Formats: sequence, C-alpha cells, structure tokens
Amino acid sequence: MSLQLAARTARMNPSIIREILKLTEQPGVLSMAGGLPSPKSFPVEAVRAATERVLAADGQGALQYAASEGYAPLREWVVQHLAATQGMRVNASQVLITTGSQQGLDLLGKVFVDPGSAVAVERPSYLGALQAFGVYEPRFVGLDLSLERAAAEQARFAYVLPNYQNPTGRLWSADERNALAASARRDGVPVVEDNPYGELWFDEPPPPAISAQLPELGVYLGSFSKVLAPSLRLGYLVAPPELYPKLLQAKQAADLHTPGLNQRIAHEVVASGLLETHLPAVRAQYRAQRDALDDALNRELRGTADWQRPSGGMFFWLTLREPIDTLALLPKAVEQGVAFVPGAAFYPDIDGQPAPLDTLRLSFVTLTPEQIGDAVAKLACAISGAARMGGPA
Amino acid sequence: MSLQLAARTARMNPSIIREILKLTEQPGVLSMAGGLPSPKSFPVEAVRAATERVLAADGQGALQYAASEGYAPLREWVVQHLAATQGMRVNASQVLITTGSQQGLDLLGKVFVDPGSAVAVERPSYLGALQAFGVYEPRFVGLDLSLERAAAEQARFAYVLPNYQNPTGRLWSADERNALAASARRDGVPVVEDNPYGELWFDEPPPPAISAQLPELGVYLGSFSKVLAPSLRLGYLVAPPELYPKLLQAKQAADLHTPGLNQRIAHEVVASGLLETHLPAVRAQYRAQRDALDDALNRELRGTADWQRPSGGMFFWLTLREPIDTLALLPKAVEQGVAFVPGAAFYPDIDGQPAPLDTLRLSFVTLTPEQIGDAVAKLACAISGAARMGGPA
Repeated sequence: MSLQLAARTARMNPSIIREILKLTEQPGVLSMAGGLPSPKSFPVEAVRAATERVLAADGQGALQYAASEGYAPLREWVVQHLAATQGMRVNASQVLITTGSQQGLDLLGKVFVDPGSAVAVERPSYLGALQAFGVYEPRFVGLDLSLERAAAEQARFAYVLPNYQNPTGRLWSADERNALAASARRDGVPVVEDNPYGELWFDEPPPPAISAQLPELGVYLGSFSKVLAPSLRLGYLVAPPELYPKLLQAKQAADLHTPGLNQRIAHEVVASGLLETHLPAVRAQYRAQRDALDDALNRELRGTADWQRPSGGMFFWLTLREPIDTLALLPKAVEQGVAFVPGAAFYPDIDGQPAPLDTLRLSFVTLTPEQIGDAVAKLACAISGAARMGGPA
Repeated sequence: MSLQLAARTARMNPSIIREILKLTEQPGVLSMAGGLPSPKSFPVEAVRAATERVLAADGQGALQYAASEGYAPLREWVVQHLAATQGMRVNASQVLITTGSQQGLDLLGKVFVDPGSAVAVERPSYLGALQAFGVYEPRFVGLDLSLERAAAEQARFAYVLPNYQNPTGRLWSADERNALAASARRDGVPVVEDNPYGELWFDEPPPPAISAQLPELGVYLGSFSKVLAPSLRLGYLVAPPELYPKLLQAKQAADLHTPGLNQRIAHEVVASGLLETHLPAVRAQYRAQRDALDDALNRELRGTADWQRPSGGMFFWLTLREPIDTLALLPKAVEQGVAFVPGAAFYPDIDGQPAPLDTLRLSFVTLTPEQIGDAVAKLACAISGAARMGGPA
C-alpha cells in the first residue's frame, strides 16, 4: 500500500535535533543540548493554587469551548505587558492567544507563504521556525539590516529573534533595531519578531521591540514557556489589523482555540503578580549558570574556541578554531559524557550555501554550576581528541 | 499598506456559523444553535482532584516540554479504549495525541492535500472539517458507499463521521460500514473516520469503527471534548505506520506537542475509572433532552417538518416541507427568542451544486427539557409566519 501524499511532505523529515536529543538521553550524560528551561524555575505551587481558584470560581466555564481569539482578560494582560516591557501600544483586538508561540509560526507560514515565496531569515536561526515555515515550501533568503535581498526577492516577511537568539544568544542593539525597522518601512517588508527569551535578561532589559516601530508591518510573537511553564503551551501573537482576520481563520481551522483552562490558569498566575517575584529569581539562577559556563569555557577552551558571553537567554554559541566537524564530534563527546547541539542544525538552506561545520550550541540552564564545570572539561577533552586526530573529525 | 498573502487565504473567511452564533448570543434567546456539550456534564471536581494529584506527583515534569507523540500512559489508554469500544487492535506507536481532534483534521489536510486534490466528503458534513481541509485547497467530491467518485477522482481520502453525525445525527449501520471498508480496500482509498460523538449513545453502542477493518488505510480520530471537557483541547488520531511519521513531523511544526499538563490530567481522570460512572450519567441526561425535543417536534411541527430521531449524539436535523429558506428564517426565529443553525452552512461546494435551503440543525444538549418545549413552540411560530408570507422567506 502506498499512500499519495501532499508535495509538501517531501520536506517534512525528522528533526536532526530531536534525533540527536534521543542519543543524548543516556544516563550519565551531562546534556547541554536541550532547549528546555530549567524545571526548577517552574512555579508549581502557583499553578496548583491558580487551578484551584479558576475551577472554584467558574469550573463549568473554564472547561467549555472558548473564543478562538483567546481569553479576554489574558489578551488585556498581554496589551499591558507589552506596553510596560516592549514600548508597544496595541489593542486587545490585535492579540491572538496561540497554542505555544510555535503555533504562531505555523499560522504565519499558512497565511503568508506560497510554494516558492521568499522568506528572509537570519543564518543561523531558530530551527522550529525554519520547520514551521518549511511546511509551506518557501525559499529562504538571507537577512541583513538593509533588507536588500528581502526587498529584491519580494520576501513575504523577514523573521528575526532579536533577544538572546536561539541558537547564538545574540542581542540586537537599539541601533540595529532602528535600522531594520527603517528598512522594513521603506520597502514594505513585514517583520515577524519572535521574543521567547526577552524576559530572561541578566543585567538590564533589552531595547524595545522592533514591532513598536512597525504598527502596520510588525508581527510580534510572545511566549509563556520560558517565564511560566512550557507544558501549558501558551503563546500569543500581535498582528496589524489588516492581517489579524486571516490569522484568526487559520487558528480556528487549526485547533478551534487555545486550551481555555490553561489560559485562565496563566491569567490567574500573572494577574496575581507572580512574575514580579518569580522572574528575578529565574534571572538570578540563569545568570549564575551563565557565569559558571563562561568561567569554565575560559578555563578549558580559551584559544580553542571563540564565543560571546550572552547577556540573557539560555545559550552560548561556540566557534572552534580548528576545522572540526561538530556533528562528527558529538558521538565522541557523548562517549565522554557530555552533549551539545552541532551548529549546522540551525542553518537554513540559502542558495545551497554549506553550513559552517565548526560551531555548536551549549545550553546552560539545566545543569548546576558544578555540573557545568564538569561538562565543559569533558567537552574540552573530546575536542582535543578530535584535534589530535588531525583535521576534520 | 497591502500585505502579500498566500493564495490559500482567499478561502479563509469568517465561519458562517460563528457569525450566526454571535447573533444568537442575546439574553432571552433559547439557543439550539451551538455545537457545545452541556456544561452540566463536565466533571469539574474530578478535573480539580486530578490536577492536584498530577502536580503533587511530579509537578516539574508535568510543566516541562514533552514528547510530540503525546504522553505515553495516555497513548496506552487510547489503545485499550479502542480495543474495548471500537474493535480496533492498534499499537501505541500509531497513536498521536492532538490539540483537540480539530488539529488532527488540520494535520491530515497538511499531509494529504495539494491544491486541487480530490477529497471525498458527505453532504452535509462537519463544518470544522471542511474548513480545516479547505485551507489546503482541495476539490471536494461526493461520497457514496461504493466510493465510485472518490476512486475515479483519485481522492486523497474519504472523510466520514459514522456515529451521530454533525449535523444530521445519523448513525451508519454495520452493513454500511462494511460496504465502505470493502470499497476502500478494493480501490485503495484512505478513510478518515471522525468519532467525537460515539460514546454518546442512548440505547446501545454503535457498531465497531470502520477503521478496525482498514489497518493500512484507516485514520481514526477521537476526542475528549464530549466525554470530558472541550477546554482541555485533547484529541487523538490513530494512523497506519506508513503515514504516522509525516503526521508527527507536521505536529511538531504545528505546536511542538499537545499541552502536557492537560494530557496528564486527562489520563489521571480516565485511569481512575471516571468514565465508567460519568458517561452513563451524561447519556441519561442527553437521552432525556433528546426525548423532550422529539416530543416537542411531534407536538409542534408534525406535518411541517421531517426528521429522524437520533439514537445518540447532540443533534436533530430537520427538513421543512414548505420551501422556506432557513437562513432568512433565522433572524425571525431570533426575534421570537429561539436560534438554530441553517443547514446550508454544512454543505461543501461540490461542482457548484446549490445547498438545500430548507434544512436546519437543532442541538438538544444545552437546554432543559422545559426550555426545549418552549424553544420548539417559538420555532413553530416563526416557521408558520414564514410559510404564511408565501414561499421562500
């Protein structure tokens, strides 16, 4: 029996990262490969108490079908939150609550992308976004602040992750944001701005969102996964009024609405002011882990690799000085007892340009500072072994 | 500013039903229009207690990212449940937990449908399925038990809702199921079998699933929305091994995974045996409401409309004997204080055939038996007013 499938399924293949993560799920392996937040950061008791209150206040309402747009008080909270943290002045009618911000990426692919449409992306970029858009068969093109290529190719949108990017940990400066916004306005290129990590700053908050400067062209994506809990699958997008109705139709067709119980729980938690006390604790935890990783890298890999210490988020991005293929390095590192994600996984295919082979991503949020020291020593050992073998491992 | 959108968005337009439902959300209107289950049927206390237990047992695990395939114990429960109720012998590796069964429909559209592909559907059919598939721009073709048209047009699949269909309330006999399965096997046509209402039988369970006869061609969709609570957004699909990996990739790209907390809550509820005591109570409640509606129709509309008393589910389907346009009738009915859904909303466009105008769907599960009597009296009044006006209202 051979089923006849849609042409787009030719591009739906197992995620390299997910296959690798399976490999690293062995006992005794210190994994810096995951993109997961630290479970210690989850406010379990606050979620329990909020659920109790939500079900006591209106249990039947909390369990019934709900509006596709999202739970109205949560949409209002998003408006206030974006005004306070992102300099964005938007109306609740522009806010769509999504089943994780991953769903926002899928909906944007659905409403923007025809097969062969150009979509401008950073290189490297978030793998989940490349996969979500990839379903709709775009042609990825390179992105720079002038949006030169994006405009020339009539890109349907430019996708950016300006705060502590996954995978590079990079933060865009205010000047870079202004430059991109100016280019977008000049050439009429919509900008999709994904911000899952913006609240995880360590010293000072990031500059305001690019979307604040693009009321008609900016689509902003937010997430509760890193500030509250991923398993609730709650994200949101904010879209220009012209675009919103199509995204809403796509949302209805995709899953009718985001789980209503979860939306009420999240609203109960954030309305109680939990984030004001919870986020500083998460930032302090992640900052200590970031420092531990930076120290360990300086101790073990100075002269062997280059990196920028990230000022927020969850990731370090390393470039090795020797031409070592990090995909081939990974199984050797796992033998040593440490795991990472080879950087090649995060490169979109743009005009067939080969991905650099000598990069890797390290997450610092799920290991303790002591484990981080251990993990980096093991990594250094695997790298020096590969370097001794001479050339590409 | 005019954004350039994907061609498929031309078909993404506001749902007629949703616009109508807004119209009927006026105080004092007895609505038989909704497709919502009765909130009285929701096991609020069981959900509360299950959440408590889930968070106490492993709160951090319950709030972390989870597997795209779904929560393993829930997938195992689905296997046992389908063996016990549907005569299906499947492996947990074939079960994908979805964000409501609506998401299953979206994923199936995504992996099966290219623009212009034929998809065979009943006429009328579930509006949400027509919308989910419609995003991928199929050509709908008619469905009969011989699958003649479906096979001739190389339909990517045939979509059926054999148990108490939405909107008609119709139950397929065992002979009809056998005939469809034989046709599907003969012609190699995949069958997508949607079963949200199968547990809501009033006298005896429906015959086994068609999918039980189609291990390589059947895709079965189940839902927790009508047996537990819609706001959890939990459904599942069971797919042949050949198809499963593509659906899984599509699922990852769509929302990474179904909310993990919700999956654990649902598993806790069903594993505790709640359905064994809960479902008989729901059936008894719905049966009494079904009887009240049948009685009221016999009292008020005998000779004016034709209908079959459904043996389960949530809906009656009426055909008026006078050629009255039920879309035009609706605002008059709302003036009288009653709402329904005009049948035309449920008709797919097949070769431009016009939808019959003289049909309507009545839900009996959200009004009390007394309210149902009232509602039908008001409906009869609106119909006789329209009939007096002479011809199409």
